[in-house]
Amino acid sequence: MRVTTSFPLGTLRDTPSEAEIISHQLLLRGGFIRRVNSGIYAYMPLMLRVIEKISSIIERELNNNGCTKLLLPQLHPAELWKKSERWEGYTAGEGIMFNLKDRQGKEFGLGPTHEEVITSIASEIINSYKQLPLCFYQIQTKFRDEIRPRFGLMRSREFIMKDGYSFHSSKEDLVSFYEKMGKAYEEIFKNCGVDTVGVEADSGAIGGASSKEFMVTADIGEDSILFTESGSYAANLEKAVSLPSKAVKLEKIENDLIETPNQKSIADICKKHNLDSSQIVKVVIYIAKFENKSEVPILTCIRGDQEINEVKLFNLINKIFTSNLIHLNMMDDIKQIKKNLNNFPLGYIGPDVEDKSINNDSNWDKKWIRIADKSADELSTFVSGGNKINIHRVFYKFSFSKENFTISDIRNAKEGDYISLKNHEKLKEKKGIEIGHIFQLGQKYSDKLNAKFSDKDGQLKNLWMGCYGVGVTRIAQAAIEQNHDNNGIIWPIQISPFEVLIIPTNLKDSNQKELTEEIYNNFKNHNIDVLLDDRDDRAGVKFKDADLIGIPFQIIIGRDSINKEVEFFCRKSKRKLKISSSNLLEKFFSESKIMYNNNS
Amino acid sequence: MRVTTSFPLGTLRDTPSEAEIISHQLLLRGGFIRRVNSGIYAYMPLMLRVIEKISSIIERELNNNGCTKLLLPQLHPAELWKKSERWEGYTAGEGIMFNLKDRQGKEFGLGPTHEEVITSIASEIINSYKQLPLCFYQIQTKFRDEIRPRFGLMRSREFIMKDGYSFHSSKEDLVSFYEKMGKAYEEIFKNCGVDTVGVEADSGAIGGASSKEFMVTADIGEDSILFTESGSYAANLEKAVSLPSKAVKLEKIENDLIETPNQKSIADICKKHNLDSSQIVKVVIYIAKFENKSEVPILTCIRGDQEINEVKLFNLINKIFTSNLIHLNMMDDIKQIKKNLNNFPLGYIGPDVEDKSINNDSNWDKKWIRIADKSADELSTFVSGGNKINIHRVFYKFSFSKENFTISDIRNAKEGDYISLKNHEKLKEKKGIEIGHIFQLGQKYSDKLNAKFSDKDGQLKNLWMGCYGVGVTRIAQAAIEQNHDNNGIIWPIQISPFEVLIIPTNLKDSNQKELTEEIYNNFKNHNIDVLLDDRDDRAGVKFKDADLIGIPFQIIIGRDSINKEVEFFCRKSKRKLKISSSNLLEKFFSESKIMYNNNS
Repeated sequence: MRVTTSFPLGTLRDTPSEAEIISHQLLLRGGFIRRVNSGIYAYMPLMLRVIEKISSIIERELNNNGCTKLLLPQLHPAELWKKSERWEGYTAGEGIMFNLKDRQGKEFGLGPTHEEVITSIASEIINSYKQLPLCFYQIQTKFRDEIRPRFGLMRSREFIMKDGYSFHSSKEDLVSFYEKMGKAYEEIFKNCGVDTVGVEADSGAIGGASSKEFMVTADIGEDSILFTESGSYAANLEKAVSLPSKAVKLEKIENDLIETPNQKSIADICKKHNLDSSQIVKVVIYIAKFENKSEVPILTCIRGDQEINEVKLFNLINKIFTSNLIHLNMMDDIKQIKKNLNNFPLGYIGPDVEDKSINNDSNWDKKWIRIADKSADELSTFVSGGNKINIHRVFYKFSFSKENFTISDIRNAKEGDYISLKNHEKLKEKKGIEIGHIFQLGQKYSDKLNAKFSDKDGQLKNLWMGCYGVGVTRIAQAAIEQNHDNNGIIWPIQISPFEVLIIPTNLKDSNQKELTEEIYNNFKNHNIDVLLDDRDDRAGVKFKDADLIGIPFQIIIGRDSINKEVEFFCRKSKRKLKISSSNLLEKFFSESKIMYNNNS
Repeated sequence: MRVTTSFPLGTLRDTPSEAEIISHQLLLRGGFIRRVNSGIYAYMPLMLRVIEKISSIIERELNNNGCTKLLLPQLHPAELWKKSERWEGYTAGEGIMFNLKDRQGKEFGLGPTHEEVITSIASEIINSYKQLPLCFYQIQTKFRDEIRPRFGLMRSREFIMKDGYSFHSSKEDLVSFYEKMGKAYEEIFKNCGVDTVGVEADSGAIGGASSKEFMVTADIGEDSILFTESGSYAANLEKAVSLPSKAVKLEKIENDLIETPNQKSIADICKKHNLDSSQIVKVVIYIAKFENKSEVPILTCIRGDQEINEVKLFNLINKIFTSNLIHLNMMDDIKQIKKNLNNFPLGYIGPDVEDKSINNDSNWDKKWIRIADKSADELSTFVSGGNKINIHRVFYKFSFSKENFTISDIRNAKEGDYISLKNHEKLKEKKGIEIGHIFQLGQKYSDKLNAKFSDKDGQLKNLWMGCYGVGVTRIAQAAIEQNHDNNGIIWPIQISPFEVLIIPTNLKDSNQKELTEEIYNNFKNHNIDVLLDDRDDRAGVKFKDADLIGIPFQIIIGRDSINKEVEFFCRKSKRKLKISSSNLLEKFFSESKIMYNNNS
């Protein structure tokens, strides 16, 4: 393609102020995307080529694994999401699903994910176990009403995803297909030229038994990955399980009541009273709101040096109750506390605070749901709130289980923790960008949407399901985060918008012009993805743009045209080679082959 | 691809009752689409392949014409549509744009068309005339809140379109590019294997100076095409201009007042009083509602044997007023008439009805906007309403222009009309399905959205714009409407999901199985789009499905496998040929070549 007649570039001189991270800056500066609204971007011609290359890599791999491509609607009738009991959770309050009413008042959501739609179709087209397994996938724009869109395509409100859904006649078949997809995903990411790690993950609102995330490691990643050096364990923060460091034993303290005026933080208390934070039990109050509108106060306890993992807590509460949990908010709003609780000195609450602390006029349930993390339960003696302002006290032999606490792991694992008693591997931490996620859904959706098949024994059974997502636009940006320098992007050749860029430095020179056309046509005739920067611009401008947009190879046609010589430049290695134009094609083939193989 | 492992078919035995027209029935029965909600369909694997083939044909042709592909967002911020003054018209009342508020209360529309978005981007990336012309296009799902979705993909609420937008430094360049696009469109439709006619069309809500529609002729088409046999003229009903047949001269009638009790229709009056309908002036009342909320009563007059063209009328009223016209409704609601008009005997109204007929308490403007079609204006003597119940009267030398009428063409052309005084070509009528539409937008959007370029003389000027749409999913369905028989679809090879279908009749026969694999692999290795129906089903079932899904060539592998002989069947010609498997590939190449050439 030629820049002047069919492939305009749109590079910017300055970095738009909205962009905080380098990959977002480079996408904007390189003219790959343009912002239309907060979290809403146009994919400009260069970007669309990247998206199409990533899509082809995904398609090839999935087709090879017996998956079939289709395209589902983006408007989802509310009925379907009500059947799966996800409508409220996805649309009310913090719900991330854009939703609307049509002219006749019917409700629709804009699909962020398609379990409901595909399960309803599967229920119509799958009759017999003989048709199974089946896996359908699509590559499509998804919508998500992000409250704070940021980082360009990382957290945007429209983004392109591959989402796939598999159907099985047994759990075993699901598990084996899930494993196969995991391998296919590794292949896809390798073929896209990005480095990823697979980690155990929480299934979240999608649900299901088991799930795995694929992360591109990058300092700006929003997710924390906890892993062992040996590779024996890797999970994201939401899911990771570990053993906390050993608590410091609490020796007997003279006075059971400890005056702690204005000592609201654990650090303050430890400092003033010569305690270790592992000797304290921290009480954190939450309010849980359910689909059936009930509001339940939650009292959680955790060892003072540990942090509560709200995803684990959410899942636990959701499991305890029959109604769906919609919101879980930490209670720190003084107005709400005054309205719903009697004399409630937040910061000085102990695990033994009574149910009568809940105001009779409150909408809340009149009984605390008490949950203790294992780290608290393991302390026989500890300091905690005295339920009076400015007072903490020592608890001896306090039994969480006897006091009606549910004991569970609701704790954030952290760097330095051991993963088990057996070995001495410690967790390390890295930041990552999630670009893929696979789930064993089990029968959650087939049950709710009545998607059955007739099994070998003639019995109607619920389909077993898996689901598999890849963030297509995220891969593109994550690849930049991993591959750039001060001058711009360095695309992995597999997903680069073009494989090679031809830069004539002066097209008014007839030798150059002739050689340029010759090389351009030769490359085109060999089906190489070639872009010709035939703009009537200074060479310096073209070089700068070339480095910025990051096409892996540049062919620079200058004064040596007269001797049929050009420069062959590799964007990544920065190696520049003077070469006769007659050897150029061969050189390109050998160099690009190495690059394709290195990255994949 | 193999049906059992990677490409499941989903044919149905019965025709779903929702489908009224054959193409819709065949899409459903063939398993190409599945209904998710009214006007909302999933594109199943077979259908997606058709869509991708059509898309590639479009891309190839547009890329050859210097157009550049990108992808714009589907969520459009209301601000942009307010700038172009289309937000109200597209979202209020009969507005067809789905719209929603995000969690922060910001308004968005779901793009049915992208003039606003692309113009706003163009205003940022185009600086100089040197960059022009530019044409960007995308292939994308569009949304339209159809009040009565029907005919499958013909009038659905989600559909796939190619929409393109060109930018020019002069009107002349726009016109020449528009002509070039017209030719490219003809090429695209020819390459898709569908027969189309190009017709002059109304620009509608898109606006602009000139527009052309591309129609697939089909009896079930919702659009009327008026054309001359010679091809000298073709326009759609909304736009077509013609001369009405000659009126029958009205001789002097004894009594000027004609009693017409209970004779409400023109046919009644003509019959009772021996008149011709061309001697009558029909009065039709409309109420026009504008963006600025004003409501204006419209009184229209037309010759009794002619029909009012509401698109022409809408455009005319919109031109007369500065505020945008949002709705135009014929006034036949007795309640509304009683509320807003004094003693108003609908059916007996004449062109001279007075302004004081409008009730002082009404919200309406207190003055009739009077509009007469040329056909009425050309009558010197005519019969019309007497403004009294059961009374008509004769009007002698009534001058519409003196009575404050705007005289214009607001008439439907019809079959049998002459197109001009000069020649004697009469209009014929056909039904058509619109699959493409191109517009000269002029400066409408660049003006409203402040999209300027600096011209050769250094002056900032508004960009000239064109826009170009193709209904991708509509082409698919229109192709079926044109190409089917009692057994099912007969795809044009260019857009068929596969080029050839291999049907082994009995895979338990080892000769058949071996030959099947040999042929399948041979075709695959030659990059032929081949589908293998390897289901363990009766041959009859497979043949029926094969005819239904309409792949142009079938290779039937049966008992003659033992002699390495198979049958080669052409779906369209129904010719079946026994052939040695060694000649099969050559036969396929020659036959398919003829088919590609015939259709394109």
